[in-house]
Amino acid sequence: MKKLFVVIAALAIGLSANAQQALWGGPSVESPVINADGTVTFRFQAPKAVKVEVTGDFLPTQKVEMEFGGQKFTADMPGVGELKEGKGGVWEYTTPFAVAPDMYNYTFRVDGVSQIDPHNMWVNRDVASLTSVLLVPAPGERSDLYAIHKVPHGTVSKIWYHSETAGFDRRLTVYTPAGYETSKAKYPVLYVLHGIGGDEDAWVTQGRATQILDNLIARGEAKPMIVVFTNGNIACEAAPLENADGYVNPTMSLPKTMEGTFETAFPEIVKFVDSRYRTIAKKQSRAICGLSMGGFHTLYLSLNYPDLFNYSGMFSAAVGVTDPSISPIYQDFDKKLATYFSKKPALLWIGCGNTDFLFQANKDFMKKLDDNKFPYTFMETDGGHIWKNWRIYLSEFVPLIFK
Amino acid sequence: MKKLFVVIAALAIGLSANAQQALWGGPSVESPVINADGTVTFRFQAPKAVKVEVTGDFLPTQKVEMEFGGQKFTADMPGVGELKEGKGGVWEYTTPFAVAPDMYNYTFRVDGVSQIDPHNMWVNRDVASLTSVLLVPAPGERSDLYAIHKVPHGTVSKIWYHSETAGFDRRLTVYTPAGYETSKAKYPVLYVLHGIGGDEDAWVTQGRATQILDNLIARGEAKPMIVVFTNGNIACEAAPLENADGYVNPTMSLPKTMEGTFETAFPEIVKFVDSRYRTIAKKQSRAICGLSMGGFHTLYLSLNYPDLFNYSGMFSAAVGVTDPSISPIYQDFDKKLATYFSKKPALLWIGCGNTDFLFQANKDFMKKLDDNKFPYTFMETDGGHIWKNWRIYLSEFVPLIFK
Repeated sequence: MKKLFVVIAALAIGLSANAQQALWGGPSVESPVINADGTVTFRFQAPKAVKVEVTGDFLPTQKVEMEFGGQKFTADMPGVGELKEGKGGVWEYTTPFAVAPDMYNYTFRVDGVSQIDPHNMWVNRDVASLTSVLLVPAPGERSDLYAIHKVPHGTVSKIWYHSETAGFDRRLTVYTPAGYETSKAKYPVLYVLHGIGGDEDAWVTQGRATQILDNLIARGEAKPMIVVFTNGNIACEAAPLENADGYVNPTMSLPKTMEGTFETAFPEIVKFVDSRYRTIAKKQSRAICGLSMGGFHTLYLSLNYPDLFNYSGMFSAAVGVTDPSISPIYQDFDKKLATYFSKKPALLWIGCGNTDFLFQANKDFMKKLDDNKFPYTFMETDGGHIWKNWRIYLSEFVPLIFK
Repeated sequence: MKKLFVVIAALAIGLSANAQQALWGGPSVESPVINADGTVTFRFQAPKAVKVEVTGDFLPTQKVEMEFGGQKFTADMPGVGELKEGKGGVWEYTTPFAVAPDMYNYTFRVDGVSQIDPHNMWVNRDVASLTSVLLVPAPGERSDLYAIHKVPHGTVSKIWYHSETAGFDRRLTVYTPAGYETSKAKYPVLYVLHGIGGDEDAWVTQGRATQILDNLIARGEAKPMIVVFTNGNIACEAAPLENADGYVNPTMSLPKTMEGTFETAFPEIVKFVDSRYRTIAKKQSRAICGLSMGGFHTLYLSLNYPDLFNYSGMFSAAVGVTDPSISPIYQDFDKKLATYFSKKPALLWIGCGNTDFLFQANKDFMKKLDDNKFPYTFMETDGGHIWKNWRIYLSEFVPLIFK
């Protein structure tokens, strides 16, 4: 047996020096650690550092003044916790409060330089940033929906469709619920759209959408459904580093996201999905939702294709921002709105945080709905334009559709 | 239009401060940069650091003495390049040579602490380590197979099967070739196994297997095939952070990987795949390959189920390491070997690096094959027990199967 273990040890030496350190031998730093009292400890080894901080949305936000294009904004930015140096150059910070059950992103700042947590393998990319992920599990709390449980799991596929509009193949993330492959049933379809700078991966990584779906369906709180995560930038084949552009870092990709092309081309995605999957291919069994720019897309897709979606969810939606001259998609807003409601959609659901810079715009939009006696459902949450809210909205919206 | 851009700017403020820095305003550091002369420049911003190094397999290896369990090993470890501090605390290193077209992993070492490149969104996890990825593209070179091209893309799915052996659902990565969904044809199946500490994600992230498949099939150099990436640790539902164990970091997961249970349970995976996908469910259309521990699994699966696989690929396989008393799977080796060859498999393919610590063990195994006049194909490469070799072996093996 000794020989076996020796060879197993040697096998691992094929890995990087870094890996070995984590596996045996070298110093082992555990971070993050959720303590019994609900506080969370973060650790970072940096013997020569002068200052090590941790920042993330588990800390109370701070108001920060920002400026862009001559305009000033006040934005809610994550707070900062200062780590203290201990033995072996291991810096440590424990929250002075129990961290509420939820999913969070955090990074370290070592002498001013942002770093992910090298001891935490869970890293998400959000647009052009890598952050470490902290999931505080809590049975009975909403965050339980974000965790993986021993329940039947849907299949998550990266699949490509041909876009006639773009002239090339484009990538979708598609969730088919547990049992889809062995069933002969047809399923309703929910389309889920990301925000500006996002892509077809965002809702699955930062949004925990497939976990939310698995868990809600397993609980019987949502209907089994197919969920399609699109890429809202029609100029892109796929998420950064997943397309033929090769070795480039993501950018905000503004050009082809809010100028009407995505919405104009959307029916080709619906057509593809209806041809490729066993869908119930009618309005009654089709829903759409999206965050921020995706909420904007959701609104205009709902208005321009009033026979396509029966349920629409606008999450922190970028309403009231459009210059109608950009595209026919954005023209005749009031008329399209009236037509949309005349066809009696089953649900228009709006969610927005009360410190979101888009909160007033959403209130203005809802005033217009009120003035016209157009029905909708509104959920106001604390906080701003953040993933925490978007996970809440998705987990609220999904149980309401296809009933 | 001004309002639109102001709001778009504000949308992004919902992202982290880190993101904004990358998007506008703050200092922009580009890293890595492939220069026109083929050298590569790495940059890292750390104004207060004393020493910044970069290490990775793009650098010539160094011999490093290591010890485990009282045994000494010499391992090839990546070399180290020292960055020099420049303006604004931006450290920089340019390779003194053109980096050969290939895929590499690298990390920075800032005052002794390993860090990924915060300016490179391409991060792979290998067991318990995060590394930044450098792909040096080169048309006409093998590394071209690792890049994404505008060719038809297969679908990559994460799908769960029920393991009767384990008593719970387990996750597979499955590649179906472009055209699978719209065809009525049946397809051959290749099973691809990871090394110790790996999982069903490893070949897709570090191995670039789905890119290799897409490209070889598009060139007509490989048959369209279904490819199944298993998880070789039968005690696990899925890759770390993809299972109900929740918030734990990966470990080497030794207990249930090389003691026969995985091999004993393997037919349930084949049965699942044959029931779920349009496969040609016979030996002639079934292949298996794996790296290191996965090469070990490949060997014993081939020997114990001589009617299952017609093509077997052992990549840097951990041969000659087993204590047969562990499991019946590892017993009667010579007899099983003779039976296996008596059934005339179409291909036993062996690849190993000539500085691999398993090179001699593979030579010994091939001597046994020679002594018995058992046919096989051998590819010797430079280098050791590294992903660079495993990508080569996969791209050599795949064109040879299902002909």
